[in-house]
Amino acid sequence: MAAGLLPPEPASLNPVRGVAIGTARAAIRKPGKRDLLVVRFAPGSLAAGVFTRNRFCAAPVLVCKEHLLAGTGGIRALVVNTGNANAGTGAQGLRVARETCAHLASMLGVKPETVLPFSTGVILEPLPIERLLAGLPEALEAGQDAGQGWLEAAEAIMTTDTVPKAASRRIQLGGREVHVSGISKGAGMIRPNMATMLALIATDAGVSRPVLQRWVAEVADLSFNRITVDGDTSTNDSFLLVATGPPGNAIDRDDHPDAAPLRAAIEAVAIELAQAIVRDGEGATKFITIRVEGAQSVPEAAQVAYAVAHSPLVKTAFFASDPNLGRILCAVGYAGVMELDADRVDLHLDTVHVATRGGRHPDYREEDGQRVMRQQDITVRIGLGRGGHAATVWTCDFSHDYVAINADYRS
Amino acid sequence: MAAGLLPPEPASLNPVRGVAIGTARAAIRKPGKRDLLVVRFAPGSLAAGVFTRNRFCAAPVLVCKEHLLAGTGGIRALVVNTGNANAGTGAQGLRVARETCAHLASMLGVKPETVLPFSTGVILEPLPIERLLAGLPEALEAGQDAGQGWLEAAEAIMTTDTVPKAASRRIQLGGREVHVSGISKGAGMIRPNMATMLALIATDAGVSRPVLQRWVAEVADLSFNRITVDGDTSTNDSFLLVATGPPGNAIDRDDHPDAAPLRAAIEAVAIELAQAIVRDGEGATKFITIRVEGAQSVPEAAQVAYAVAHSPLVKTAFFASDPNLGRILCAVGYAGVMELDADRVDLHLDTVHVATRGGRHPDYREEDGQRVMRQQDITVRIGLGRGGHAATVWTCDFSHDYVAINADYRS
Repeated sequence: MAAGLLPPEPASLNPVRGVAIGTARAAIRKPGKRDLLVVRFAPGSLAAGVFTRNRFCAAPVLVCKEHLLAGTGGIRALVVNTGNANAGTGAQGLRVARETCAHLASMLGVKPETVLPFSTGVILEPLPIERLLAGLPEALEAGQDAGQGWLEAAEAIMTTDTVPKAASRRIQLGGREVHVSGISKGAGMIRPNMATMLALIATDAGVSRPVLQRWVAEVADLSFNRITVDGDTSTNDSFLLVATGPPGNAIDRDDHPDAAPLRAAIEAVAIELAQAIVRDGEGATKFITIRVEGAQSVPEAAQVAYAVAHSPLVKTAFFASDPNLGRILCAVGYAGVMELDADRVDLHLDTVHVATRGGRHPDYREEDGQRVMRQQDITVRIGLGRGGHAATVWTCDFSHDYVAINADYRS
Repeated sequence: MAAGLLPPEPASLNPVRGVAIGTARAAIRKPGKRDLLVVRFAPGSLAAGVFTRNRFCAAPVLVCKEHLLAGTGGIRALVVNTGNANAGTGAQGLRVARETCAHLASMLGVKPETVLPFSTGVILEPLPIERLLAGLPEALEAGQDAGQGWLEAAEAIMTTDTVPKAASRRIQLGGREVHVSGISKGAGMIRPNMATMLALIATDAGVSRPVLQRWVAEVADLSFNRITVDGDTSTNDSFLLVATGPPGNAIDRDDHPDAAPLRAAIEAVAIELAQAIVRDGEGATKFITIRVEGAQSVPEAAQVAYAVAHSPLVKTAFFASDPNLGRILCAVGYAGVMELDADRVDLHLDTVHVATRGGRHPDYREEDGQRVMRQQDITVRIGLGRGGHAATVWTCDFSHDYVAINADYRS
């Protein structure tokens, strides 16, 4: 059902030096599924992350933040389980997340704070830690030399996803080949407010901690923080950026000659992974780009774009290929920009000019709107006529299958 | 499909002195449907209204506001059409709404500003005024003596509604019998931000204009402003309160002996009409009361209640009778109360204590949650542990039929 999304070609995914990937079947929720991922990083690797702003932040997210703040950003391993979010689990949940890190750290002979835990799945249920720990040896054994393992990693973190999500770039920096590869997951409970659980991007370039931390936030704002499936900000959103490269010639400032091309490659991978989540949105049949221009600020533009992207009426109209486009104007009107002058609002559907000055454009014909609505990929462009700022949000339509998937998710 | 909602018994609906009701089939959108309503009011009747805050406010809403502000609140008639919202129609839409009032006023021999127009239906399409005007004589003829016409009026304003919505109270004020009757419509695009299109409540008591204006806002905040079906605030929401009683002994202050019982009767009718809209929400199979307590303010409590009420994941879980209650905590967490301490949050489902201190309650058993989830009427009670304020929001579940109804609405 995913809107124009195919599984990535394994050959297109570059191994990243200093990264070893292994997975296991730990029967966290149900037996048989590959539900445990361990990624190991070479000594000297650095990480920076952004995490959900949901106040019911999951236990592993709290532990990730502790560990990233406690040390110098050094990372030696991360461990991801699906099937259980370890969220809404109180003090017991925190204990279990810390114990997971300590256990894996002792197996690897590294410090516990260089291990980061991630969980995704059902909320409000205790994480069966004994099964998780029992699965670790298999994941470590499988991961002895797994530079090619990105696809397997992407598969291991899927929940209601129908397609594994991985993306990769290879660039030349000063005559040396550098790789950027990443994975993501997510199909429902997607309205990231920092990033989405889980996205991991690794590069074998060397990048200093402050630059890495700035980039992870900037890139999140242009990728994972600009997508929505259902408006539900998860308890577990996490986006981690890891650099395994040697500290010798690390990129430590934005005017470093390698900074711009590497930053661009990371952003390209992040946008590709973020858009893949939307294309695989629960029940999605269409991929919708909502571009709001002429706003007084970027947050104002994003606010309007999200109002349109979250409207169930707009989303069901896309599903039906019905050019019932007044629903879009209605959502613009209630987006919360109280000084908005409806008479200055413009609406385009791809290149079709639908509305101008608060009413239907004189040249607009329903068959033109109908033609665009039938496409799989559609761009909605809204002009507010208030200023020079813009924002883009990506979303999907709302179909029968969204209800079916979410009414049946736990059964 | 309406969740526990039956059509009102005609005998339970009281005629209101000074109110005459008539309807017609004007073929506004499609032939055959009763789609035009005219309500006439005796000389001396007063009206007050609250209207949508959507910036794409429909033309008839703008004209209603003009007319109510221009005069002394006197009202002699209102006219409602379904099938076309006259919204997103620019200057032409305004002209048509004003012309409708002028035309009806001249037929009745009253001033145009004592006539109020209302429209509901598709947005962004020109209102076929010639068909509307052609239907007026039939509506006026039918309405010569229609004190009993509330049910017919409720039927005439239905769009995707499956059940007509009308409610009534009869009270004794100083030995005199006084009536309060009203109608409402709405099933989708329901997240009123003043009131919902259209609710009309009339009483044959006498009430002064300032008291009427205060009551309409206060009552809206406790009824129509506390319901949501899909979070889409309509362009046409309107709630009108009319008093036809003699000005002689009008209620002109809150300590008037008749004020409290009349205000209570009006509030009871408004809540009944508002809840009927939720029970008839598009595709609704369940009626959910969301009560948030322990907030620092009423707006804060309402903000959290709406986040839960709008979550597609929560709504599909109710549809499935699946006690996947972590989804509720997740929505509480992203509701935007940034200082919320998750460890103080409490969750009850009816009398079942589900969560306490950020985690599952030790006595909670899934079969208890399951039992409540299977009911048609469910109360979710959330304690924030931050203060002494509370708010209640009513909503419905999210079913396959919501998608079916909205993907097919115009076909």
